[in-house]
Amino acid sequence: MNDKLLVLGTMAYDAIESPFGKTGKILGGCATYIGLAASQFKIQCGLVSVIGDDFKTAHTNLLSSKGLDLSGVVTIPGEKTFFWSGKYHNDLNTRTTIDTQLNVLTKFDPKVPEKFKDASIVLLGNLDPNIQAAVLDQMSAPKLVVMDTMNFWIESYRDKLDELIGKVDVISINDEEARQLTEKHSLVEAAKVIQDMGPKYVIIKKGEHGALLFHENKIFCAPGLPLEEVFDPTGAGDSFIGGFIAYLSQRGKVSFEDMKTAVIIGSALASFTVQEFGTKALEKMSFKELSERIQTFKRLTEFEIELT
Amino acid sequence: MNDKLLVLGTMAYDAIESPFGKTGKILGGCATYIGLAASQFKIQCGLVSVIGDDFKTAHTNLLSSKGLDLSGVVTIPGEKTFFWSGKYHNDLNTRTTIDTQLNVLTKFDPKVPEKFKDASIVLLGNLDPNIQAAVLDQMSAPKLVVMDTMNFWIESYRDKLDELIGKVDVISINDEEARQLTEKHSLVEAAKVIQDMGPKYVIIKKGEHGALLFHENKIFCAPGLPLEEVFDPTGAGDSFIGGFIAYLSQRGKVSFEDMKTAVIIGSALASFTVQEFGTKALEKMSFKELSERIQTFKRLTEFEIELT
Repeated sequence: MNDKLLVLGTMAYDAIESPFGKTGKILGGCATYIGLAASQFKIQCGLVSVIGDDFKTAHTNLLSSKGLDLSGVVTIPGEKTFFWSGKYHNDLNTRTTIDTQLNVLTKFDPKVPEKFKDASIVLLGNLDPNIQAAVLDQMSAPKLVVMDTMNFWIESYRDKLDELIGKVDVISINDEEARQLTEKHSLVEAAKVIQDMGPKYVIIKKGEHGALLFHENKIFCAPGLPLEEVFDPTGAGDSFIGGFIAYLSQRGKVSFEDMKTAVIIGSALASFTVQEFGTKALEKMSFKELSERIQTFKRLTEFEIELT
Repeated sequence: MNDKLLVLGTMAYDAIESPFGKTGKILGGCATYIGLAASQFKIQCGLVSVIGDDFKTAHTNLLSSKGLDLSGVVTIPGEKTFFWSGKYHNDLNTRTTIDTQLNVLTKFDPKVPEKFKDASIVLLGNLDPNIQAAVLDQMSAPKLVVMDTMNFWIESYRDKLDELIGKVDVISINDEEARQLTEKHSLVEAAKVIQDMGPKYVIIKKGEHGALLFHENKIFCAPGLPLEEVFDPTGAGDSFIGGFIAYLSQRGKVSFEDMKTAVIIGSALASFTVQEFGTKALEKMSFKELSERIQTFKRLTEFEIELT
């Protein structure tokens, strides 16, 4: 049976510069990427977010047309939507933030709509851990809670973050952040320390090198799809976790085996996202294309062996 | 039918410092690591190398006891064996060379023993491309020629290196060197440029992130085994290519499918090497341990998927 999915995250405008070009203000925010990725699956997905009155109707329409429930998205009149602008360097692995305008985020008081309070899967997207906790507190009895975080919260909100990490089932974090959080260089050691903090499942994202899923003493390794061209890495991690969680929601099961497949689906979605600026690739891709790419992932690592 | 394997490479003494400790002069050199890795397989493997009269009998005995043919290893009296000392930094991905004493290498005039001139597989280990070419010229009709190289030869011996690359079937190179050689950041693009230079198969090593094998438009991705502790990365690339080539030699086949398996075997051997200083792990490991580790690699990337 499908599970209902509740996603907390930002809806934003971004301006992005990469070695391949420069955008004007385009649609962004982690809830946007997560929602668009999740919309590939036949699930009920509700977003909890906040926008200003400059948020374009075309963009809310886009998200609604993908079947996303926006009743948890609050508009704050007279305020502007969260804005981020950044520049990726030549290797695309590092970026510099040019401008961050929190705008409506400073007044974000998240409210989970009644019909999503009983969602069995909750994704706490990358945001202030106080806001993530406020959403979790409104849920009746989720069977799986997933959180994403980043360096800013590790540096400045450590106590609250640790408290929240203690309450979630799955954490998604990148390699450098896992090292920062645990002060361990080895990702295997870092994952153990994080598991000891609470989460039974730890996902460590390694950018172009793929992702690792840790559970008990087991490890699953999803490759990064080698791509000829990467235009814009923005939203790759969000597309990843969006695909991950939406597959689990559709499947209605959350075992390690299910999560392995979910990690591959997330990786496939992320591989689409980075091939165009912003949300463009996610907006137009079909489920058929996603299925084909997943087969590409399968072929990428399959081998036969019989040692004598 | 097994193929005869001829390996060109250095035999050396190394002194290594890593965050986990410091060694005195220990056995090193690419031919040593390649030979020890290859000795896991039931093949005839001959080494072509050069040593000084300081090279310890215990070390030649060790290599002979593993079934390696040393008739192509020349001792230059009154000269010392090649010596390298280096220090790995905290992340183990970067190292600084402290000292390089070429010693016998400056007088190396490689001679392939008669009985190995008809070897069907040749591995040209990381050395001056002039020496690699001199060995290749002595072979009668190898069916597969594999070469390894590194930044030093790319920077200083470019013309000769390009000429040699045009004559080999497989090249093994690390990610940064592939980018340096081709001036392409994307590894997919870099591999295409290298394929256009000659080699039908291109292996790009990504250290802890595994390795990619390119052939025509196909890509195979071998994961890096996530390890709790890495003591010393020295010889990882050599163990990798040694295992790769020895498996192909034993198998007597060199298709893309065979090479996929060979890449996994190389990765497994490299994963042993880095867990102890120098050649220690390779010296004592058993074929049973290797087989078990290969199963670990299989489990690491296997997933089931059925999308509806």
